[in-house]
Amino acid sequence: MNESTSRYGVKLILSYDGKRFAGWQFQPGQRTVQGVLSDAVRSIAPDATEMRAASRTDSGVHARHQVVAFVCGRDIPRRGWIHGLNGCLPDDVSVQDASPCDPSFNPRFAARAKTYHYVIHAGIARDPLVRNHAWHLGPNWFRRSANASRGTDVGDWLNVDAMREAAGQLVGTHDFHAFRAADDPREITTRTIHHIDIVTGYRWNNQLLAIEVRGNSFMRNMVRIMAGTLVEVGRGRMEAHRIPELLGPSASRDACGPTAPAHGLTLAHVELED
Amino acid sequence: MNESTSRYGVKLILSYDGKRFAGWQFQPGQRTVQGVLSDAVRSIAPDATEMRAASRTDSGVHARHQVVAFVCGRDIPRRGWIHGLNGCLPDDVSVQDASPCDPSFNPRFAARAKTYHYVIHAGIARDPLVRNHAWHLGPNWFRRSANASRGTDVGDWLNVDAMREAAGQLVGTHDFHAFRAADDPREITTRTIHHIDIVTGYRWNNQLLAIEVRGNSFMRNMVRIMAGTLVEVGRGRMEAHRIPELLGPSASRDACGPTAPAHGLTLAHVELED
Repeated sequence: MNESTSRYGVKLILSYDGKRFAGWQFQPGQRTVQGVLSDAVRSIAPDATEMRAASRTDSGVHARHQVVAFVCGRDIPRRGWIHGLNGCLPDDVSVQDASPCDPSFNPRFAARAKTYHYVIHAGIARDPLVRNHAWHLGPNWFRRSANASRGTDVGDWLNVDAMREAAGQLVGTHDFHAFRAADDPREITTRTIHHIDIVTGYRWNNQLLAIEVRGNSFMRNMVRIMAGTLVEVGRGRMEAHRIPELLGPSASRDACGPTAPAHGLTLAHVELED
Repeated sequence: MNESTSRYGVKLILSYDGKRFAGWQFQPGQRTVQGVLSDAVRSIAPDATEMRAASRTDSGVHARHQVVAFVCGRDIPRRGWIHGLNGCLPDDVSVQDASPCDPSFNPRFAARAKTYHYVIHAGIARDPLVRNHAWHLGPNWFRRSANASRGTDVGDWLNVDAMREAAGQLVGTHDFHAFRAADDPREITTRTIHHIDIVTGYRWNNQLLAIEVRGNSFMRNMVRIMAGTLVEVGRGRMEAHRIPELLGPSASRDACGPTAPAHGLTLAHVELED
């Protein structure tokens, strides 16, 4: 076998802290995950093709289980890729696993479902321990009259039952065109949300609420607009039973909540076709 | 009332990320929580006394609910202290609450119980999302022969049932003199541990294990040596039923596990006497 003409497909599982990255996708002059990973891979396999990811995460968004694939001329075992790449990569990105794949494998088209986590911190003051991974809702987000008597549980600030009721209305197959960034170009805007779980006491911290969203495919900012909309319900600015008005062809982006900030969002898992 | 002679006791609840602090206690030329907080308090109340804390956390240890008290000549309402101090403090420390207290109040002696969390990450590669808040146990910590077949759950790496059995033996009133740093000067080494809970899947992450320890009082490094000892049990280097040999007057520090690193530890809560 002539190694110089053999082509090996490699699949990586990647974890990164989005704070200091301008997102996944390569941009000239910016620090991106794709750029940093390409440099590391090419220091080991100089002929590696472009890195393809399951999800092009936005600037500031974290990932615990991003799936990436490329093709190169070197046949390197699993441990070699993991330790070789982690030795080159900076401390805010790491390879969690590596395995062979078909050279034609494209994680974006092979993703059957994705799971995202969005974390919210409600409380009077910012918290250094979660500042880079949770959206802080301070007193200005809530009705001033009620603030003085609030306790320290996230449930004292947000109506979690109403948020769960609203989340239940988002589950299913709907036209989510109102839940996407203005620049999202896709024509087909129907998506299926398999489940949304909302838990309080995340990280053993009674001020944190975490939202888990699993669906077949997501448009740009879709989870962040869902999180922003659920917060509107939680703080009493929107009623849970009005969620269906945000779904379907006549819905408007303006009727949804704000786009929740990037640093609360983590791509938690990608499920691939068999 | 003559304000210049009135003395007001102030109790603060403090949260901090320990990474860039050389611990709680003031040391010349070092960045400490006590030093940074004193500067902020004295910019508002120049005559404030020394800051007294419930727990003198070591370098690198985090806190979510540290209790601090001081006395000063200014009577400032709760919101004034919270927002005034948080406006001066750097982003890795913040005041979560403020309330009046007796000028003689000393959090260290008023603490009836403390709760600490210790987080462990077991897996083949470091994880950027938990790198500053969990102890990473990589493959070198485990028997090489078994590593190739391990899954990705923390329970595939550590025997969690054995750790829980060992933890159960630490609960109760015992002589913990083997579980303290060599420089700890205290003569009375009997302590009561009220409970130890061990959970997997902390932070919705199957590679994380978290240990919650609640007790009446702790010696220096006590929780970190407990965590290091539980890891020895979890990885099969020590048997759970031998824990009682580490308790009592004839026990030796060398028979316990290593001192787990500071960055996995968080002071989660302090309960005060009524």
